[in-house]
Amino acid sequence: MNADSTSPAQKIILDCDPGHDDAIAMLLAHGNPNLELLAVTTVAGNQTLEKVTTNARAVARVAGITGIPFAAGASRPLVGPQLIPDEIHGDSGLDGPQLPEPSIPLEDIHAVNLIAQVISENEPGSVVIIPTGSLTNIALFARMYPQLVERVGGITLMGGGHHTGNMTPASEFNILADPEAAAIVFEESWPVTMVGLDVTHQVLAVPERMEQLKAIGTDVAQFIAELVEFFGASYMKERNYPGPPMHDPLAVAAVADPSILRTVHAPIYVETQGQHARGQTIVDFRRTWSNNDPSGLGVTDDPDFEAPNTAVAVDVDAEKFWDLLVDALTRIGNTNF
Amino acid sequence: MNADSTSPAQKIILDCDPGHDDAIAMLLAHGNPNLELLAVTTVAGNQTLEKVTTNARAVARVAGITGIPFAAGASRPLVGPQLIPDEIHGDSGLDGPQLPEPSIPLEDIHAVNLIAQVISENEPGSVVIIPTGSLTNIALFARMYPQLVERVGGITLMGGGHHTGNMTPASEFNILADPEAAAIVFEESWPVTMVGLDVTHQVLAVPERMEQLKAIGTDVAQFIAELVEFFGASYMKERNYPGPPMHDPLAVAAVADPSILRTVHAPIYVETQGQHARGQTIVDFRRTWSNNDPSGLGVTDDPDFEAPNTAVAVDVDAEKFWDLLVDALTRIGNTNF
Amino acid sequence: MNADSTSPAQKIILDCDPGHDDAIAMLLAHGNPNLELLAVTTVAGNQTLEKVTTNARAVARVAGITGIPFAAGASRPLVGPQLIPDEIHGDSGLDGPQLPEPSIPLEDIHAVNLIAQVISENEPGSVVIIPTGSLTNIALFARMYPQLVERVGGITLMGGGHHTGNMTPASEFNILADPEAAAIVFEESWPVTMVGLDVTHQVLAVPERMEQLKAIGTDVAQFIAELVEFFGASYMKERNYPGPPMHDPLAVAAVADPSILRTVHAPIYVETQGQHARGQTIVDFRRTWSNNDPSGLGVTDDPDFEAPNTAVAVDVDAEKFWDLLVDALTRIGNTNF
Amino acid sequence: MNADSTSPAQKIILDCDPGHDDAIAMLLAHGNPNLELLAVTTVAGNQTLEKVTTNARAVARVAGITGIPFAAGASRPLVGPQLIPDEIHGDSGLDGPQLPEPSIPLEDIHAVNLIAQVISENEPGSVVIIPTGSLTNIALFARMYPQLVERVGGITLMGGGHHTGNMTPASEFNILADPEAAAIVFEESWPVTMVGLDVTHQVLAVPERMEQLKAIGTDVAQFIAELVEFFGASYMKERNYPGPPMHDPLAVAAVADPSILRTVHAPIYVETQGQHARGQTIVDFRRTWSNNDPSGLGVTDDPDFEAPNTAVAVDVDAEKFWDLLVDALTRIGNTNF
Repeated sequence: MNADSTSPAQKIILDCDPGHDDAIAMLLAHGNPNLELLAVTTVAGNQTLEKVTTNARAVARVAGITGIPFAAGASRPLVGPQLIPDEIHGDSGLDGPQLPEPSIPLEDIHAVNLIAQVISENEPGSVVIIPTGSLTNIALFARMYPQLVERVGGITLMGGGHHTGNMTPASEFNILADPEAAAIVFEESWPVTMVGLDVTHQVLAVPERMEQLKAIGTDVAQFIAELVEFFGASYMKERNYPGPPMHDPLAVAAVADPSILRTVHAPIYVETQGQHARGQTIVDFRRTWSNNDPSGLGVTDDPDFEAPNTAVAVDVDAEKFWDLLVDALTRIGNTNF
Repeated sequence: MNADSTSPAQKIILDCDPGHDDAIAMLLAHGNPNLELLAVTTVAGNQTLEKVTTNARAVARVAGITGIPFAAGASRPLVGPQLIPDEIHGDSGLDGPQLPEPSIPLEDIHAVNLIAQVISENEPGSVVIIPTGSLTNIALFARMYPQLVERVGGITLMGGGHHTGNMTPASEFNILADPEAAAIVFEESWPVTMVGLDVTHQVLAVPERMEQLKAIGTDVAQFIAELVEFFGASYMKERNYPGPPMHDPLAVAAVADPSILRTVHAPIYVETQGQHARGQTIVDFRRTWSNNDPSGLGVTDDPDFEAPNTAVAVDVDAEKFWDLLVDALTRIGNTNF
Repeated sequence: MNADSTSPAQKIILDCDPGHDDAIAMLLAHGNPNLELLAVTTVAGNQTLEKVTTNARAVARVAGITGIPFAAGASRPLVGPQLIPDEIHGDSGLDGPQLPEPSIPLEDIHAVNLIAQVISENEPGSVVIIPTGSLTNIALFARMYPQLVERVGGITLMGGGHHTGNMTPASEFNILADPEAAAIVFEESWPVTMVGLDVTHQVLAVPERMEQLKAIGTDVAQFIAELVEFFGASYMKERNYPGPPMHDPLAVAAVADPSILRTVHAPIYVETQGQHARGQTIVDFRRTWSNNDPSGLGVTDDPDFEAPNTAVAVDVDAEKFWDLLVDALTRIGNTNF
Repeated sequence: MNADSTSPAQKIILDCDPGHDDAIAMLLAHGNPNLELLAVTTVAGNQTLEKVTTNARAVARVAGITGIPFAAGASRPLVGPQLIPDEIHGDSGLDGPQLPEPSIPLEDIHAVNLIAQVISENEPGSVVIIPTGSLTNIALFARMYPQLVERVGGITLMGGGHHTGNMTPASEFNILADPEAAAIVFEESWPVTMVGLDVTHQVLAVPERMEQLKAIGTDVAQFIAELVEFFGASYMKERNYPGPPMHDPLAVAAVADPSILRTVHAPIYVETQGQHARGQTIVDFRRTWSNNDPSGLGVTDDPDFEAPNTAVAVDVDAEKFWDLLVDALTRIGNTNF
């Protein structure tokens, strides 16, 4: 949906693997007036490529997304073995509500080539890519089309986390699912904003939040409520959480309204090796380029230090996030999918 | 110094590499009435084995420590290359104040064999080892004398940190100096308490604290003040800190008065490999055995989970620490070294 | 050149990084009557992508190659840092003879997409890919187009070696230049034949061999002689070899006439990690599927063992190789480049 | 047994984990007149420390070894997990013949401290250590007593291999059982000779060799024949070998008569990390310090290259080995154990 404000909407490509929270991310990307969704690409992750691609197209119908290209990408990670977290997302990758038959067509082009095409056709710097799955497609894009990297406006990704992991003590699923791809993405010259567990664990869809969504009263809101119900039961069973974290929508929200997050510019390294640390995103908080770091120590005023092109989200305004989501769903209304 | 209270003092072995903060740790270990220092062993770390051993014996004279064995241990790490942080501790390892000639003799026994002897001669569980340097001696002890591991009352060590490193973005000096040794120590069956950067960076010897120490008015307090002055200048230059962290004394304080720290029982892994994570201590905060974890999430009430034998310090009562240090120095008084 | 025999020529794609021995490989691929060269793709390796692509097109003019597509591929390895062995191939990547201006056009398509196109348009199993550089393009092809992997007739690559390395004690240049790509290629389901240092070090272009080539008396033979002169001087200076190894042409020769090599089917692993072994190709000679293994031990007759899809060249008929090269150059004749 | 020749016998310490081939190594060490066995130390390996220590003492009785100290050492590897190859050596570590009750006492001293004592008490350079198990004790010795390393005459060890592994495609059991210990031993400044699979696989106890041993007609020869029968059946079952390799005795033989082996001085690296290469011994054959290297290439005549202190056995005179073993058993005669 285009913004009704005077400033133009931010153009985005959503690269996802629906996935319960991916589905909500798609709805937010579509319903938020500050965003213009140019394309949706899929990557194996929460389930196989085939399943997440079907899921993405089914969610498009729920959301009423039409007229933009959908393309399938990588069916497995670059180097390591494939992980499928079916204990979280179920056998379909989107267990819970009844999904409609997809109606939006699947383009006969590889996701990586579609991304290249979209980036080439738009003004340099005008398109932000929002990956909410593993970073295989984005890494392949960087390696296949290095000349286009500088045309990308930024990468705002859901993944990683500095102070905790979920798949292992140190690593988050999207990064662990393809650490080499993540290392590539974080090392490229484009601006990267990491929206990781440090902030997504602060935004849980607890029951009172779900009541708030259901109160919107549309078929789409009801669909989300059913998604969250399944997702939340997984998180309760596996991790004893009072509600499921809003991982992926938070990355979309961070582009729609950057004030939702407090970010710190700092070097971020992805560990691809190690016995315990593979898939970890290590943030160098020893010297930061703002006074926002958690400890308050080590802030540099050295003018020779240049801010790195990577930033990590360290705090979130959860209230603002929920307002944004309610607003998007309200704008979408009923879609009679 | 023996406690004047009714409960007997906790017997300890101090394994150290003085080092500015090690020196303060020695003074605290000697002056605190709840601790009974049985032996001091040294390990290469803040400087070469020869230098830190001389320093330990010189500090013994400053503190007035007599009648207990001092023995030198490992001159280099188990597997990796040796690191010497002379940018922090200077060429002597204890730059700053004038050091007296050591008077306490050096035993003709390897530190590891001395530890074995002390542990054998005391009641099972009665002796806590406090390592404030790299863990080479303790690892060698565990491998040379596995049958004595269960006789050790516990290991309360200064090292590591979950949320930050100092030598690298992820790793702290004592652990990075010998990650394989650290892995051995954390994997053994004895109780381990990790007093790491998460808490030591909360206890900085800022100028007002130094004034408080100097006000004690003894030659020993003056010695510490000069130590801290050099140490603090290093930290200011290298890391822009307003005062040097009281790393090593905090480990001693944690044994003298456990209420100084808030600790969480959680599995702790030492990463020995990796491109960025070597030397990191990874704490599994996903499931913890108390409600003290930083996020408040994931606390288990599963009765089948047994608390691990490793605990991490997550918070510190700095005020209490300074009181403890002032008390110890006051008790030591003037030593006319 | 098409075969004049009754059996049809083997269709090939040459993926290369000229490079002195790549240039000879191109000439052999063009001049041998048993091979039909469908396309040439380039990859950064012996020099930058730009230089090796220009070199490939210049060599096409020398060889008289026309009417087939040339496309540029990856400009750097997948994950690790880029290595440029200019101590071996010089600043241009093809130092030595004067190169003509390229006349064959460069297609406006990524090498990986060109490979996909060629494989799609030809009968399943009919095209063999011969990589003589690092395996980045081939790995990207496998990850971008997994559905086409089973249509590839085979991969016969120059790279690796079991008993020695050249860049490190354990690793050969093409593999070390992109170990992750190599791991991908060796793990895929297509047939892979590794033509590594174990055999290429048995085929040195010693002076008497050069006399034999020069005696052909054509401008192309003279070009090769000048190439080998530079290449040989590098090998003498760097490694004290009496002549440069015919690395890349041997991979082409192995497809033109498989009887040139003795190969053993065995599992082959690429080590991507390690302090000393990164880039190594480890062949499991403990159980082999022929009686050709070097030790003569461990040959299995267990009918439950299936031969793996990877084979390693363990011996070479050098005489036959030189005959093949002389024949190809004689067929090419003068090209008046 | 002392030599009856004019030159004095070479003093040795045998550090072993019997183990079938260790047992034969002990007999050879005792029966060979050029060797003087000063002490036997044990290390966990082919079975647990307790079992191999009992086995060593039982073999002492079989061999008639008296009057020298036996001491137990490390019960597990330095860092990694313990491996027990009971598919090769059986539940006792020495399955096959009936073992006598040990009569030689076990010293109440750690093996590492015993080695230190023996090295201290003998002339510098006069004692060679022969490890035939994993290198944990030797590594602990190097780390506990670095000042004694230069007093050791040399380390001639059974382990590793350049061209093949046995436990994995790349690694041999003794090295893989404790790669960190091996890395320590190969990196120290003492002379190291690696007697690995490259040569031990050339000396198989095939049936005709066994007939030769049995023909000696003593109780000890019969004991060995029974050992080899069990050991050979394991090797036939697991690896299809016509006879078991004489791994450990070959290391002893190499000290008794160095002319049995052809060795090449070359750098040797132990890989402690990696997915496939952990435990591998990598020999740098690119530049060697003799013309004995397998390929005949790359031999340096550069006077600036200094021969490294590590050497690898590349060929063996099997005939000479068997003569040596028969001679030793003949000298031992009947022991009526």
